[in-house]
Amino acid sequence: MKEIDVLRSLCVPTESKIVLLVMDGLGDLPTDGQTALERAVTPHLDRLALEGACGLTDPVARGITPGSGPSHLSLFGYDPFKYILGRGILEALGVGVLVGPNDMVARGNFATLSEGKITDRRAGRISSERNMELCRLVNSSLQSVRGIAVELTPGKEHRFVAKFSGEGLCDRLSDADPQKENKPPVGTGAQTEEAATAAAVVNAFIEEVTAVLKDQPRANTILLRGFSKHPTIPTFKELYKLKAAAIANYPMYRGLAKLAGMDILDVGPDISDLFDTLDRHYADYDFFYMHVKRTDSAGEDGDMEAKTKAIEKTDGFIPRILHHNPEVLAVTSDHSTPCLMKAHSWHPNPVIIHGRTAMPDTVTFFSERACSHGYLGRFPAVHVMALLLAHAGKLQKYGA
Amino acid sequence: MKEIDVLRSLCVPTESKIVLLVMDGLGDLPTDGQTALERAVTPHLDRLALEGACGLTDPVARGITPGSGPSHLSLFGYDPFKYILGRGILEALGVGVLVGPNDMVARGNFATLSEGKITDRRAGRISSERNMELCRLVNSSLQSVRGIAVELTPGKEHRFVAKFSGEGLCDRLSDADPQKENKPPVGTGAQTEEAATAAAVVNAFIEEVTAVLKDQPRANTILLRGFSKHPTIPTFKELYKLKAAAIANYPMYRGLAKLAGMDILDVGPDISDLFDTLDRHYADYDFFYMHVKRTDSAGEDGDMEAKTKAIEKTDGFIPRILHHNPEVLAVTSDHSTPCLMKAHSWHPNPVIIHGRTAMPDTVTFFSERACSHGYLGRFPAVHVMALLLAHAGKLQKYGA
Repeated sequence: MKEIDVLRSLCVPTESKIVLLVMDGLGDLPTDGQTALERAVTPHLDRLALEGACGLTDPVARGITPGSGPSHLSLFGYDPFKYILGRGILEALGVGVLVGPNDMVARGNFATLSEGKITDRRAGRISSERNMELCRLVNSSLQSVRGIAVELTPGKEHRFVAKFSGEGLCDRLSDADPQKENKPPVGTGAQTEEAATAAAVVNAFIEEVTAVLKDQPRANTILLRGFSKHPTIPTFKELYKLKAAAIANYPMYRGLAKLAGMDILDVGPDISDLFDTLDRHYADYDFFYMHVKRTDSAGEDGDMEAKTKAIEKTDGFIPRILHHNPEVLAVTSDHSTPCLMKAHSWHPNPVIIHGRTAMPDTVTFFSERACSHGYLGRFPAVHVMALLLAHAGKLQKYGA
Repeated sequence: MKEIDVLRSLCVPTESKIVLLVMDGLGDLPTDGQTALERAVTPHLDRLALEGACGLTDPVARGITPGSGPSHLSLFGYDPFKYILGRGILEALGVGVLVGPNDMVARGNFATLSEGKITDRRAGRISSERNMELCRLVNSSLQSVRGIAVELTPGKEHRFVAKFSGEGLCDRLSDADPQKENKPPVGTGAQTEEAATAAAVVNAFIEEVTAVLKDQPRANTILLRGFSKHPTIPTFKELYKLKAAAIANYPMYRGLAKLAGMDILDVGPDISDLFDTLDRHYADYDFFYMHVKRTDSAGEDGDMEAKTKAIEKTDGFIPRILHHNPEVLAVTSDHSTPCLMKAHSWHPNPVIIHGRTAMPDTVTFFSERACSHGYLGRFPAVHVMALLLAHAGKLQKYGA
């Protein structure tokens, strides 16, 4: 029996509540001797560390730097080597395209076609505004191709997401992108027999879009790649018998939570808005995933000052969670984004589990290095969900 | 998707350099309260521990004492439960026999045959010198058997390695050794149909060698066991896109590195010679495996004084590595060889990873017990390579 199946068999619904607060990209490396988390003044997080059990988690595996997809799946308890999200899906989630079971999405570029060759794969990096206008033009000219509904959603610069909706689509398709410039355009190819219909639809779509764009000076064709259908992922309800809600104000994280079957709650753009939403819906769910983005974006910018401030700001709202007295409050991250590296990294996430049955250990403040001495030890993030369920009294005994 | 396949898919070649310094059998147990590593004065290793990230690795699994084969394979990133080297291969590597894809090797004993029975499986433990003379005699009398080239390479006392070279050899052969004395000799048997040709070659070889040795007083026949062909192991180039070199002055470790596809560099017999070779070839490779043997042999002898000195001597050369400013310097061991036990053991290896993106933790000197408090935690040695590649910036992000 696999561990995940054992876990699933042990879950029981209870009244108890779990709040999982994810500070994206929280883990850091020292600059002038301190990480952002060590520099930040965080009395509330330190109190949680003092009272709770601490540790470090590896998002995927030692040395592996995860994107937001694998790192979140892992934190939600899905084996990140088994559940792999296509690039098209992630791009779609990032721009807020909802993807259902009959939908197939792809990442797209507007590109320049000249004398039978793709001379610019990014159409001169047109502005995001121009991109919006072009998507609107295509959407108004073309609603469906061969009975399949089609829609473009603009991203940044020359990038967009194409969504194909209808029965019988299969995503085993090669990229409709020559990858290099000054090569002729290539259509998509079906990699299995089942995908033949989808390939014909996609190629007809590219042809029709190119006809719509024929008078445009630069953005006169499109390239499509990373075709992906909605992945088959068991929901939080199926796996854990949880009624789960996501409180996140960025599309990518709302989309990832949606894949796990969480309800996506309305929330404003600020950190404080996350806690207002929690207050409003606290009675309605037994699991809350709360996502703070600012820590990650400050890390990506290499802005230690902004990262420190984002941590301090979040710290100030911890009493808003404790006020509800959840059975379990966990604070952690999906991955590290050290200011030093200005990028995601493989470094482990500090984690606190706070609740009546959490072992208070010798860790007295919240930091990467302090948590390395915690009672929870260092473990793969995919085991976090089992710990949260256990601490909330939602797991029965295994065997007699 | 398996972790090793994910890792492989993420590797990118870069200019950055990794030095992996392996002090064989380094881990120890206290004698009079201190391990050899704790007793040794090691200012340079302590500085690496202070500046770098520390931890403990289990060579194979908790409680498992590995031989040099599994412990090195694991350190090189090969699952030691999947990649298993035959005894013949290890014996061959140990005496410096190069084994190619068409070669099959076996461990051999000179033995005494009397009145149709093996009366001494070790031919009275003849001297190593006598062994060399006998191997020379056999090699000069017999160059091939049934079209297969044959060659003996002497080991210590009565032991040698037999190498069979030619097309179509299969190593699924039973041992040509009655295992007990006062039993008749046994030929090898083919364990699969494919191995029938090899079995016939081996049995004819034993018969012809016995004819050559018929007038010898004690060493008048041979026993062969552990038939092994070259194992199929992906190379460092295939797995990690590394241009790797081994700097090791013992045949076993040169042979293990050769199996992993590393270039084997010329090096003299002393510890200092390792660093001279590093200087000469630093520009030519992006991964260096350096192997110090003396720590292990001192442990095997139970000689705490010699082990301490070997550690101190190696410590003195650390600045020679740092002088080149490699992106990553890791210092660890393949397994422990406690002086108290005079043998390999299952105790974990202390490890330091030093480099710009390594987290400086609270460990301030290099020892088994200090490293148990390190930020890297305790983990299977098979994950060391992923960490080295990550710290050297040679791994792309997993997923988006």
